[in-house]
Amino acid sequence: MSTSRLEAFSDGVLAVIITIMVLELHIPEEHTWSALTHHVGVGFVTYLLSFVYVGIYWSNHHHMFQLVEHADGAVLWANLHLLFWLSLFPFTTAWLDESKVAEAPTVLYGINLLAAAVAYFTLQLVIFRTAGGQRLREALGGDWKGKLSPVLYLLGIGLAFVEPWLGLVPFVVVALIWLVPDRRVERYLASQP
Amino acid sequence: MSTSRLEAFSDGVLAVIITIMVLELHIPEEHTWSALTHHVGVGFVTYLLSFVYVGIYWSNHHHMFQLVEHADGAVLWANLHLLFWLSLFPFTTAWLDESKVAEAPTVLYGINLLAAAVAYFTLQLVIFRTAGGQRLREALGGDWKGKLSPVLYLLGIGLAFVEPWLGLVPFVVVALIWLVPDRRVERYLASQP
Amino acid sequence: MSTSRLEAFSDGVLAVIITIMVLELHIPEEHTWSALTHHVGVGFVTYLLSFVYVGIYWSNHHHMFQLVEHADGAVLWANLHLLFWLSLFPFTTAWLDESKVAEAPTVLYGINLLAAAVAYFTLQLVIFRTAGGQRLREALGGDWKGKLSPVLYLLGIGLAFVEPWLGLVPFVVVALIWLVPDRRVERYLASQP
Amino acid sequence: MSTSRLEAFSDGVLAVIITIMVLELHIPEEHTWSALTHHVGVGFVTYLLSFVYVGIYWSNHHHMFQLVEHADGAVLWANLHLLFWLSLFPFTTAWLDESKVAEAPTVLYGINLLAAAVAYFTLQLVIFRTAGGQRLREALGGDWKGKLSPVLYLLGIGLAFVEPWLGLVPFVVVALIWLVPDRRVERYLASQP
Repeated sequence: MSTSRLEAFSDGVLAVIITIMVLELHIPEEHTWSALTHHVGVGFVTYLLSFVYVGIYWSNHHHMFQLVEHADGAVLWANLHLLFWLSLFPFTTAWLDESKVAEAPTVLYGINLLAAAVAYFTLQLVIFRTAGGQRLREALGGDWKGKLSPVLYLLGIGLAFVEPWLGLVPFVVVALIWLVPDRRVERYLASQP
Repeated sequence: MSTSRLEAFSDGVLAVIITIMVLELHIPEEHTWSALTHHVGVGFVTYLLSFVYVGIYWSNHHHMFQLVEHADGAVLWANLHLLFWLSLFPFTTAWLDESKVAEAPTVLYGINLLAAAVAYFTLQLVIFRTAGGQRLREALGGDWKGKLSPVLYLLGIGLAFVEPWLGLVPFVVVALIWLVPDRRVERYLASQP
Repeated sequence: MSTSRLEAFSDGVLAVIITIMVLELHIPEEHTWSALTHHVGVGFVTYLLSFVYVGIYWSNHHHMFQLVEHADGAVLWANLHLLFWLSLFPFTTAWLDESKVAEAPTVLYGINLLAAAVAYFTLQLVIFRTAGGQRLREALGGDWKGKLSPVLYLLGIGLAFVEPWLGLVPFVVVALIWLVPDRRVERYLASQP
Repeated sequence: MSTSRLEAFSDGVLAVIITIMVLELHIPEEHTWSALTHHVGVGFVTYLLSFVYVGIYWSNHHHMFQLVEHADGAVLWANLHLLFWLSLFPFTTAWLDESKVAEAPTVLYGINLLAAAVAYFTLQLVIFRTAGGQRLREALGGDWKGKLSPVLYLLGIGLAFVEPWLGLVPFVVVALIWLVPDRRVERYLASQP
């Protein structure tokens, strides 16, 4: 079956996730700059971080499905599994923000990042087994980013037990690594006759 | 008329439903693991259950419309009728969660599941009557899953009057039955010349 | 310019409108049937009415753009003008519901319905003037439904000043009139060589 | 890579942004006209202003991508950067509304408008550098609207420090300038062989 509706549905879910997170940014009761920075400063940073993560997942999903032409039931459910973990970002981001980066919320945020990464990896594996999955495997190559990310999430989770703010550092580093435009799929497509 | 816009609109509605349910997961006031499990434990389970149900409806809808090429006004409205009952999931899930699985909310959740199943069944019947509906009828075959589900919903509703948590068991069983990838439409399409 | 993205954007906006209205259905604090009917009974009816109205607009919009192939800037803005009034439905429905159908909220709801109808009518006029608008004009014919609806909205607004519940009657009647599948566009398309 | 999914995702995000802003219009507790005008009067005006701005961005984005056929990673991220600033409109609009146009919220709203304009300008620059970007550059021409808008935003921000309501005037003027249908892309497409 064609992947066009799977892509459209995923686009819809990711579009809603990335946008409703802003509903968790509560406006300050006072109308001053100090109220804004005091009440919304942390929220702005965590919102930006989660926005970038959802953007990364959308961008990677978009690249991945450039190489996938047919999806069976297993791919549909592996994709829904990924969307499930991504759909929890508004919740875990809100708790992280509202707690002003306390220990448990930071660890939970890291677990959410880790679960989404595992779900993405699982989706790749499921696609590898479909007809045409070979193309994705070739395009991804060694996939060092995909392998390094979970290690950094675990590092962040560990650091969060020491000092929550420190735990955010590896999460930001992973985001920066993926922000560098990833040309693997583009190069692969260009190299094909 | 082509079904492409009906599919796009349904994808949009289902994407919003599946995502805004997370807004009903309220973050705990304290920033500890015990607050999380105490206040969000039930909510996480009911969210997961409803997420899986919306995912099943999307997946089945997607398969169904692989076989439907034209939609008239009756199909549009039978589809909107289905979307109406699905759109109540965020409400009935929130009440189920907030009540920590009390009797009335569990029964209401079962009624919502039952109404959505009846609406889906009605949509199938309406499509059967259109030109090309014969293909869907052939692909679905005996449709034992579609016939068993309402029976299990009724069982769950009955059990909920005895012990609400017990009532959830048949609802989970139905979800598991449908989670097994359904290859009827794929097989039918593959069998066609 | 092609209308495909205008249709996709409108589908997205209508999908969000029809779905977020459910967020205005607040769950009752008690977990009993009497609390449900007391607190959510009116809300369910008004939600259903607004859901049907958004469904009607989507269905009519869908039929209309079957006949429109190109859109210029004026069509884009006439369409956004329609979406603006429709986007207020969650607000006016919530006030109607929360007031348990008091006078001012019922009148405001009627004004919203009227404004949306005028915006839809304006969109039709703007399309009539484009190249290809002649097809839509021919398909719509006398358009007695489109002409009767505003009269009934005005009647409902008038009645709401006497007795708010009575004012809802014409609003329900208009919805029922449009619910009858409208085959004008289908017939027109079938009649074309 | 094709731009169709970038357009679909942007449509989804813009559809959610333009629609969830209505959730910030809180219904008045009393059910009278005076309560409505007192509590929602400012909110209606700011909602309308932000609705028009998101509409303008959607319309311009739609025109721009009529001329862009391929998008690389840099275009994806420049587009996400634009969506990020637009996604803050529900927040900055709600603060502006809730403060009844106080100084800091008005300035913040202006900064949001300015940031979105800079992001849009950046997206144009990134597209200019891609293969095929020359077409967009030719179609846009002198782009006096794009150059005047930031100047007017700065003027509005400056005026807001004197008298917040006065600061809104240039923001309304920019919206009116862009509301005039922009035929540059249409003309360019018509002029091409």
